[in-house]
Amino acid sequence: MILVFIGTAGSGKTTLSAAFGRYLEENGYSVGYVNLDTGVKSLPYRPDVDVRESVTAWELMEEGLGPNGAIVESYDRLLPEVDEYASRIARLDGERDYIMVDTPGQMETFLFHEFGVRLMESLPEPLAVYLFGPEILKEPHDFCFVRFFSLMIDLRLGTTTVPALSKVDTVEDLEGYRKFLDDIEYLTARLKLEPSTQGLLAHKMCSALPELAPPTRVVYLSARTGEGFDELETLAHEHRCTCGDLT
Amino acid sequence: MILVFIGTAGSGKTTLSAAFGRYLEENGYSVGYVNLDTGVKSLPYRPDVDVRESVTAWELMEEGLGPNGAIVESYDRLLPEVDEYASRIARLDGERDYIMVDTPGQMETFLFHEFGVRLMESLPEPLAVYLFGPEILKEPHDFCFVRFFSLMIDLRLGTTTVPALSKVDTVEDLEGYRKFLDDIEYLTARLKLEPSTQGLLAHKMCSALPELAPPTRVVYLSARTGEGFDELETLAHEHRCTCGDLT
Repeated sequence: MILVFIGTAGSGKTTLSAAFGRYLEENGYSVGYVNLDTGVKSLPYRPDVDVRESVTAWELMEEGLGPNGAIVESYDRLLPEVDEYASRIARLDGERDYIMVDTPGQMETFLFHEFGVRLMESLPEPLAVYLFGPEILKEPHDFCFVRFFSLMIDLRLGTTTVPALSKVDTVEDLEGYRKFLDDIEYLTARLKLEPSTQGLLAHKMCSALPELAPPTRVVYLSARTGEGFDELETLAHEHRCTCGDLT
Repeated sequence: MILVFIGTAGSGKTTLSAAFGRYLEENGYSVGYVNLDTGVKSLPYRPDVDVRESVTAWELMEEGLGPNGAIVESYDRLLPEVDEYASRIARLDGERDYIMVDTPGQMETFLFHEFGVRLMESLPEPLAVYLFGPEILKEPHDFCFVRFFSLMIDLRLGTTTVPALSKVDTVEDLEGYRKFLDDIEYLTARLKLEPSTQGLLAHKMCSALPELAPPTRVVYLSARTGEGFDELETLAHEHRCTCGDLT
């Protein structure tokens, strides 16, 4: 069972890959770890598969590239090896109960680069976990944005995607966040009160969401306290059994 | 009139900022240039406003951060200055006919970081140009993805967003691309033939698009040949006159 943590830099992918993997191990499962970030220096887990064996952003910066150029170039260089990496991950999946896949630091490297798209196509029934931190949720339309973004990942990569709020231990009013994220009807009604054109667009998009998206649950995670790990385990287990229907 | 070029690393933001700016200058307009990329080494234009005056990703990497960490940290450090940068760009906008705003190398730094969101809120009626290269368009659902992504930028930043295919000089079958991008009904009908769950989701999302989005035109640009620059100029001019309705 392959879990792929996707999110922007700083959303908690690496920390959660380590912490959730450890949680599963403590519960008696065997866990494999995959690092797909060419730019990471040190990891809080020991990767079984690591793209840095092939190329690192560092060495490309030493060749004179800037940080953005080096990151993109590293995935260009990985592309010819994408099938081999997919096979290695699939083999590891055959040997272990769960595989934690920690994706590139910058989400767009994975969503927009052929390396990410082709890797995901080649993996056997992965479950994507779209991580977003509470710091990007300020206005009601931001909640609409993350719900839609989860759908965009699904559309781009063709995987079932679970939206997950990370770092919930840092959130004071978690109930307020949950109301906006769990109850699309409530969020839609709230957006109707926004007078801006942005609010109007968000209202229209949110109104369309129930027809577009399977009614996927949002999970609430903390790598620090382990909150939500039991629910993520349940979702992963359901995904393995039903392949896709996470209502 | 402020034009903001947004897109993933390698989509052509910097090259187009320079080339379209030069085109406008050759047509008698005064043009100002703004660089928001903390990680860029050299630019093909002379910036009037440049965030590297405050911080660069380089110096943060010298302090020991990895490339992704350095990029994020640089915008954290810029955040207290966001209002000052917005004022400087607005002042420049008062002095020049057109302002080219070249955004961070990695798009998510702008879309997900408070620096980008707050800067865009503070600028007077900017027009966002969402650039995507032909290399990310392989399957019919990819065309649905970029049309929706343009809407996501609109939702996140609250600006009118023009989707723009870049590097069209490298595309052999441009008519084929145009049919998928310009004619949502055609694309929707084509997606109906895709048997995958991804195709099904794309079909549903594309069907909803006409209700969600104003019928924005797609522009087709080449920084090398100048193709589409006249159309982008027309769109920018219309945006200035009507503020938002780019049908």
